[in-house]
This record gives sequence, structure tokens and C-alpha cells, in this order.
Amino acid sequence: MGRTTIHDIAKELNTTAATVSRALNDHPSISAAMKEIVRKTAHQLNYQQNRIASSLRSGKTFVIGVVIPSADISFFGSVIHGIEMVAKTHGYNVILFQTNERYEDEVQGIQTLLQSNVDGIIASITKETSNFDHFLEVKRRGIPLILFDRATDELGVSTVVIDDYKGAFMATEHLLQQGYTRIAHIAGPSHIKIFHERLRGYVDALAAHHIKIDEDLITYGKVSIESGRTCTQQLLQLQKNRPDAIFAVEDFTALGAMEAIKESQWNRPGQIGLVGFANEAFSAYITPSLTTIDQQTALMGQEAAKLLMDQQQAEQHHEKSPQKIVLEPLLIQRQSSMRRQTKQKTAS
Amino acid sequence: MGRTTIHDIAKELNTTAATVSRALNDHPSISAAMKEIVRKTAHQLNYQQNRIASSLRSGKTFVIGVVIPSADISFFGSVIHGIEMVAKTHGYNVILFQTNERYEDEVQGIQTLLQSNVDGIIASITKETSNFDHFLEVKRRGIPLILFDRATDELGVSTVVIDDYKGAFMATEHLLQQGYTRIAHIAGPSHIKIFHERLRGYVDALAAHHIKIDEDLITYGKVSIESGRTCTQQLLQLQKNRPDAIFAVEDFTALGAMEAIKESQWNRPGQIGLVGFANEAFSAYITPSLTTIDQQTALMGQEAAKLLMDQQQAEQHHEKSPQKIVLEPLLIQRQSSMRRQTKQKTAS
Repeated sequence: MGRTTIHDIAKELNTTAATVSRALNDHPSISAAMKEIVRKTAHQLNYQQNRIASSLRSGKTFVIGVVIPSADISFFGSVIHGIEMVAKTHGYNVILFQTNERYEDEVQGIQTLLQSNVDGIIASITKETSNFDHFLEVKRRGIPLILFDRATDELGVSTVVIDDYKGAFMATEHLLQQGYTRIAHIAGPSHIKIFHERLRGYVDALAAHHIKIDEDLITYGKVSIESGRTCTQQLLQLQKNRPDAIFAVEDFTALGAMEAIKESQWNRPGQIGLVGFANEAFSAYITPSLTTIDQQTALMGQEAAKLLMDQQQAEQHHEKSPQKIVLEPLLIQRQSSMRRQTKQKTAS
Repeated sequence: MGRTTIHDIAKELNTTAATVSRALNDHPSISAAMKEIVRKTAHQLNYQQNRIASSLRSGKTFVIGVVIPSADISFFGSVIHGIEMVAKTHGYNVILFQTNERYEDEVQGIQTLLQSNVDGIIASITKETSNFDHFLEVKRRGIPLILFDRATDELGVSTVVIDDYKGAFMATEHLLQQGYTRIAHIAGPSHIKIFHERLRGYVDALAAHHIKIDEDLITYGKVSIESGRTCTQQLLQLQKNRPDAIFAVEDFTALGAMEAIKESQWNRPGQIGLVGFANEAFSAYITPSLTTIDQQTALMGQEAAKLLMDQQQAEQHHEKSPQKIVLEPLLIQRQSSMRRQTKQKTAS
């Protein structure tokens, strides 16, 4: 069974599809009586007179589309909760599209959301994306667009990010304060801004504490458990300058690092300090629990949704110039980096 | 700036919206030349001639809507990957709506997806849902609907589930085979079919091994980490018949149970066996790693998407009678339930 169309309604009423279309769109050329009978018939035939159909003129569907690289990562799940919280208060529903970190899927996702006539799009860019034409198309159509976390300034749209540089600085400084001195960094692909910022934060924290950068202690991973494990195994094979702590670019990498440390001969508590980044859901529950940087994910989602709501309202008036909201990172201290405390425990 | 509508195009061409509509819909009453000029103008004015607009007759958008209780649970993430895999091969895109386990949100989600003119819906029902009118509306509109995991037979639609009864039976039997004899069960709300089936599997496995059911060892939790912790604390306070193993209804409950066990005086490896259900992403990485039941999530998603694709094709022909696919559960043996192995290790 196909969907009921204006042609079915027209046939039922012995009139033309054009008349039905005009009646449903409240066109002045159609009599009130005709409009009434068309609406009744549409209802009887179960015509899907949805907000999209009726919004061909008003341009409002009250649906926001959110594009995320992965629904598996709790970071994005938490941001979505923040978006939904604000969206719902404004009467908007949220649909999601996941890109699986693939550029092609991101292009498809934007097309699908435009096709669904969403009133606005909130997106975090895939690791692969370097061409932004699909996002420019969103702008060209006058659909409000907000980027979060994996943002770019190239598009001239409002963004919500956290201060990745500062978070990495805090993570590295925390390890220094715990008494670690040979701190390695498992970085992410440096063409992605957030990962590059974290690398910069790490380097600058060491410099601020007058510690010389050792190139051997910086390794570039692929942002995965497996890659974290491999990078750590390589770091632990260093002969004379083996690291006594690792700052991993994000929590999955840190999880792999933790496994490699546990399997190594340096597996006593506090022997090799470890800090991640992102405060993933599992980080509190692994053993040892993982010290990490919290990105205020729910707040990030809320701010992104608020920016979008502002733009919905601003549409009628003037275009606002793009805003950039930078959230503060939070250090979450757990067992994986606690050297002094562990030593005290051992001594007692 | 609002969206370009057929009225804008009509104004530009000094014609009527009805003519524009007919031209865009390839109506025979419009000349080829007029169609051409309307299309050109539509393009110049950036008219969103999307598949939805042009599918008012064909009824195809090539978008599938998936309704999930939560994007935070890796179980659903994995099912979505399975759905996407099959959908993409057939040229379909997938949009998601998360209900956060709320009935009201589920109703909103279904409305939003219908409004987005999806070609089909794949859903897993919230814990709260007992009224199925919104799903009946989907059926009434002739939109193919498939349920997975949290399914109901009430709607007469095709479903993909795993054999929860058998999975629970396997989990309980595994603990018996490890030498545990006083096996407790932290159940979920019993009005939800999958949780009730797991309770039945637990009871029947004990019965099959001639072990009398001890009502004190069955406790009803709320399917959360916190609830798993509280239920376990209560179980461990039992004086004469304290359990020596726990089968938790799902992995988050098991995670809470593991914390409570670690904090108790019975925290030596193998002292209290533990098995979860669902093989969540964290289950392999916590210490001890969690023995659990794998639900073949990717396969579940693939099967659900295949059923939907079948129905898309069957639409033109005959309605098929609803199909019920039941997948086999898999026991994933890890450290949390290994009694004998741990004992051997201690002895060596």
C-alpha cells in the first residue's frame, strides 16, 4: 500500500490535484466549503498532512538534525542529551545521523537532513573531512548550522568547543605534580585541530615546568584501544629514557595504554602514571580508574542548542555574526595517576 | 531568510503556484518548455527540490527511521551499525531518534519520523511503554515497521529478538558448572518480556540441575549500575544462605554488583561468581573482566533491516505475514565467573 497523495484526494472528489493542493495550503482562490471538504477527505484517506507538507510556506518543521561521528562514544551521547534538553523546552524534536567517521557518510547525512527539512543542524565533523562543501550548502540554504567539538573556523558559523589546549596542559601538569618527570604523549592525528591543541598543551606544560621536550616520548596513534596498546608497548621498550607516565590523547587510547602497562613488567600501582581525555563512561569503572579531562559534554550540547535557538529567532531579524563558545575543561583525578597517594599506601 | 517555496517560483515566473507544483511533479498538462523553465528557476532560487517533495506521489524517500531507547548503550549502537550496513547496500539512509526510555518521547519520535516521511521504521520499545497506539498509527499508514529486542507480539509486525530464555539458562548453567551452588539473580522489571524471559531461564536452569529455588536469592532491580550495587549489598547481607554467585539481568547491573562485591569482605577472585547479560563495550575492560551473554547485536540489526527491505519490495505485491527471527545467544566466558581456574592459579 502506497501513501495517500493529493492525486488520490483529487480523484475521490472529482477535482484536480492542483485544487486539492491549493485547498490544503489555504489558498485564497479556494472557497471555505471546498477547503473543508478537501480536509475531511484528506483525513478519511489518511493523507499525511504533516508539518513538513504544511510548512512548505512557513519553513518550520520543529525538527533539529544532529550529525555525530559515532553513537558508540559516550561523549557524543552526553552532548545529545544536552541538545535534547534545550530543544525540547523550545518544542523541537531531535533526529540523529551518525557518520561513522566517514566523509562520504557525512555528505549523505547532511543531504538526508536537508531532505527531511530540518529547521537547523548541529554537527561534529568526521576525522576524514577536509572538504566542507556540504556544510556550505547548508549555509547557502539559510538553514542555521552550529558546530561542536570537532569544529572549524573556515565555515564562519557559530561553534561550541572546549579549551583542548588548556585541558591537555592541566593533564600534563597534574602528572608533573604527582612527581612524574618523563611524561610521554600518545597524540592523535595532528591535522585534526582538537588533537593538535592537546599536543600543544602537553608541550607547553612541560616547557612551563622547564622540562625539555624529548621527541622519543611523543608518539602518534590512531585514536583507538588497539593503537593505544601498540604505542605504549613501543614507549615501554625505550631503553634509557623510558617514560614514567603517559598522557593519552583520549580515553580509548588510554584504555589500550592501561592494558599494555598491566601486561608489562612496570605494572605496580603508581609505577607508570596515566591520564586520558574525555571522561568516557567506562573511565570511572576500569581498574585502576582513569584520571581524565571532563569536557562538560551536557553543557556543550546545551550551548550548541541555545545558539541554534537564537538563530531560529534571529532569522526574522538580522543575521548575527558567528559566536564562539569555549568551555572550561575539568580535571577528574582518579587512581591511574596517583603516585604519591599510592606510595603512602605502600609505606603504611 | 526563509526557504524558497513554490510561491516564490510562481511569482518569479508570473504564473501560479499550482502550475509550478504540476511542473515540478511532471504533470502531463504542463508543456515540456514550461517544465524546463520552472526547473531552471527552482534551481536558481535554490528551491529545495528534495526527494520528499518529488516523492509526494512515489512515496519513497530512501530514509529509514530507527527508534532506540538510548544512544548511550553500546548494545543499541551495535544494532544500528548492523542496520546501516544493510540499509546502505540498498541505497537507504538511516536517521535515529532516541527516546531516553520515556513513553512520551517515543510517541514524539514516531511522529517526527512520520513527519520526515521515512520509508520504514525499526524500533525497540521503551521500558515505560504499554500503550501501542503510536505504533498502530505507523501500521495504519502502511509504513513498514520492524521491532527488535524490546519487541511485542501485540502489534502483529515482524520482530528480531534473541532467545533471552536460553541466554539466561546458559549463564546460570555456566555458574553451576564452575561449582557455584547458591546462585542469586538480580532481575529486571518483570513486565518487560526480555527480563521476564531471563528470569525464567535462570529458574529453569536451576530446576534442570535439581537445585531448589530460594526466593531470597531473587531480587528485582532497576536495570542500572546503582541498582545493581544496592541489590548486591542486600544479597550479601543474607545470613545463612548468602549467595556464592550472581547472575545479573544485564551488564550495567552486573557492573554495580561487581563494585559492591569488591567493597565487601568477599572480594577475593572466584569467591563470588558474576555473570551479566548483553556484552556491553566496557565488559571486556573492567577488572575482573565480565562473563556475559552476547546478543549478536550487529546480526540483529542486519536481520531487522533485511526484514524491512523485504517489506519495501513486498509492498507492491502482497503483504507478507509477520516474521519472527530469534537469534542464538552466545556465552562469553571471562574472569568474573572463573572459579576453578582462579583456584588453580592460587594453588600454583
